[in-house]
Amino acid sequence: MRISIYRRAHFNAAHRLHTESWSDEKNKAVYGKCNNPNYHGHNYDLEVRLSGEVDPITGYLYDLSDLATLIKEKIEDRYDHKNLNLDCPEFKEQNPTAELIAYEIWKILRNDIDMKYDLGVKLWETPRNYVEYPAR
Amino acid sequence: MRISIYRRAHFNAAHRLHTESWSDEKNKAVYGKCNNPNYHGHNYDLEVRLSGEVDPITGYLYDLSDLATLIKEKIEDRYDHKNLNLDCPEFKEQNPTAELIAYEIWKILRNDIDMKYDLGVKLWETPRNYVEYPAR
Amino acid sequence: MRISIYRRAHFNAAHRLHTESWSDEKNKAVYGKCNNPNYHGHNYDLEVRLSGEVDPITGYLYDLSDLATLIKEKIEDRYDHKNLNLDCPEFKEQNPTAELIAYEIWKILRNDIDMKYDLGVKLWETPRNYVEYPAR
Amino acid sequence: MRISIYRRAHFNAAHRLHTESWSDEKNKAVYGKCNNPNYHGHNYDLEVRLSGEVDPITGYLYDLSDLATLIKEKIEDRYDHKNLNLDCPEFKEQNPTAELIAYEIWKILRNDIDMKYDLGVKLWETPRNYVEYPAR
Amino acid sequence: MRISIYRRAHFNAAHRLHTESWSDEKNKAVYGKCNNPNYHGHNYDLEVRLSGEVDPITGYLYDLSDLATLIKEKIEDRYDHKNLNLDCPEFKEQNPTAELIAYEIWKILRNDIDMKYDLGVKLWETPRNYVEYPAR
Amino acid sequence: MRISIYRRAHFNAAHRLHTESWSDEKNKAVYGKCNNPNYHGHNYDLEVRLSGEVDPITGYLYDLSDLATLIKEKIEDRYDHKNLNLDCPEFKEQNPTAELIAYEIWKILRNDIDMKYDLGVKLWETPRNYVEYPAR
Repeated sequence: MRISIYRRAHFNAAHRLHTESWSDEKNKAVYGKCNNPNYHGHNYDLEVRLSGEVDPITGYLYDLSDLATLIKEKIEDRYDHKNLNLDCPEFKEQNPTAELIAYEIWKILRNDIDMKYDLGVKLWETPRNYVEYPAR
Repeated sequence: MRISIYRRAHFNAAHRLHTESWSDEKNKAVYGKCNNPNYHGHNYDLEVRLSGEVDPITGYLYDLSDLATLIKEKIEDRYDHKNLNLDCPEFKEQNPTAELIAYEIWKILRNDIDMKYDLGVKLWETPRNYVEYPAR
Repeated sequence: MRISIYRRAHFNAAHRLHTESWSDEKNKAVYGKCNNPNYHGHNYDLEVRLSGEVDPITGYLYDLSDLATLIKEKIEDRYDHKNLNLDCPEFKEQNPTAELIAYEIWKILRNDIDMKYDLGVKLWETPRNYVEYPAR
Repeated sequence: MRISIYRRAHFNAAHRLHTESWSDEKNKAVYGKCNNPNYHGHNYDLEVRLSGEVDPITGYLYDLSDLATLIKEKIEDRYDHKNLNLDCPEFKEQNPTAELIAYEIWKILRNDIDMKYDLGVKLWETPRNYVEYPAR
Repeated sequence: MRISIYRRAHFNAAHRLHTESWSDEKNKAVYGKCNNPNYHGHNYDLEVRLSGEVDPITGYLYDLSDLATLIKEKIEDRYDHKNLNLDCPEFKEQNPTAELIAYEIWKILRNDIDMKYDLGVKLWETPRNYVEYPAR
Repeated sequence: MRISIYRRAHFNAAHRLHTESWSDEKNKAVYGKCNNPNYHGHNYDLEVRLSGEVDPITGYLYDLSDLATLIKEKIEDRYDHKNLNLDCPEFKEQNPTAELIAYEIWKILRNDIDMKYDLGVKLWETPRNYVEYPAR
């Protein structure tokens, strides 16, 4: 009996989208308001999915309070109230787009979640824009 | 032309997580606050999905008011304002975790929905925790 | 690295469900209140999904402001504050059910989105009823 | 001990804003897309407030299932799946704006709610636009 | 410059509505499904309001993390994952209706919030039913 | 017949809370994570209220599309994708707390809204924290 469980979390962060090797004009044309050199910010909402077999004794797929703690320690404490470009080394060489933040979160959690569970993440940058990795 | 339709419903219930054969210490360690012997409760939100072929005359996949009535009679009337452990025989021998409640709901609805439709359920225990059967 | 991005939009429209070749009794029995000859209406919420490969330079799958503009010009401007039966030729010969509106939206957007992206739409008719094309 | 209770409900309806004595140009200028002669529609969300003294025996201000039934019979059955301009006599001589629909709802409920309770209504035309009577 | 700040929190609890001195028939007639002797439950959402003068140095009305901690320690820890009738002495002699839970919460917080701040609470029993003390 | 209308909008911005004349220790103690020198950010949700007399011809209190345009031009364009500390002169000498941002928004709109309308604003910094000016 395979099932999926989902847990939501959130963090607030500043970021800027910019490609060093491009001219200011090209940066402005491609990234628009997201290129503001002084940064802007978002309330990010995160949803983590684990899929696998339910434990026949407990009726749990995975202990949700363990999952909440893992997300708190590895993701929320890393990104909450941070400037993603300046405070997080993973975004020194790549843009902190929603796509790449979601992928970085997935890689961090993948290290701590047993491979018997399939893992997915969704990340909302605003209530109207979000991303999902791996792709639907 | 295959499409999916979704219908949401809800019910409010009390439950407790407990494994009879375990010591109090182990129950407390595994289930935490959910082991309170006096029960606690939730507003459960349910989402039912049917996938299949759209009827070319009506443009319907399935009559949504029929689906709403089915969910009302088979699921909401069964679980709303109930103590899942004491009032529902399916949870005498297994824990009413979100995972197992979702699976029981799926089995009940599967009996009443023609096999030409694929069926899925999501069940929210809180706005931040939910499960999905079959697994994503 | 395949990922999905999602963008939400909305429009408000009137519609009526009716099959010309049926008697009034049959129309009433099948469509219920949705058969009101004077029309009724909804706030429709739309979610558009693109799946594909992230651009290694920008970290974007697709420029979200381009996607927002496309949805605005092709979908919102077409359906917002309209009577779907009277103002939209695609619903002269078929019912504007949520299923068929979603399918029409998908066909319109499919014409403007490069085939290297997988495309999906969800359409909410009310917060409790929605559809998804292609099927989940 | 004075307290307020709130109950939410909803209905879906079509409408049009138009002033008979004005030219088409003026109607278009004032009402914009809401002047579409074929109507458009909304999912209206309604919130009803009663304020008064709590009953010391039951701990209730007012029986919420009685209030839900009253709203269902007097408001939802009157407006749900209707064309407000054509099906509702109160909007023959005045526009079904959110402001005036809210006021009509308040007048209907005021007749059925004992004067010992203070009464207020909020009406959402979309998630971003709503009105409140009496004024805040 | 007087302003209001609001902070939301939540807890999950079981309860039952029952008046000892009444017959079973009367209890059933007045409280309906809420009279289930085995209890049922809810996800309660709480909103706390403080009104007062903004501090000219910090630009704060009240430190929101202090307020969050106070609500956590005095309210969430008291009610979360509890049976309100059995675990909470304040509901031994009175029903744990939303009205009276809100009033008890207000009294607890009033003790810890300086009188220079005006205090209000809202309590949602479900997304469609909530109460407010003091009355609007 | 006095009524209130409400319109919601949003903007995304970065900010930092800091008092120049204090030591680093005191800044850290008072503002916590909000003192990060590299800034962090939020999706701000804004709700604007006007109260007054409904126009007997149109049934409008105020043209909502005019109000939406005013909020777009005076508030969203000013704050969206900005660093409130660096890009907005009104926060050079005072902290961009939710309280003071709300007050600045109120002052800007008050200049453009006829005094016959009462004006109020709510500002959400996160879904769980918000402020209201004037005070409730």
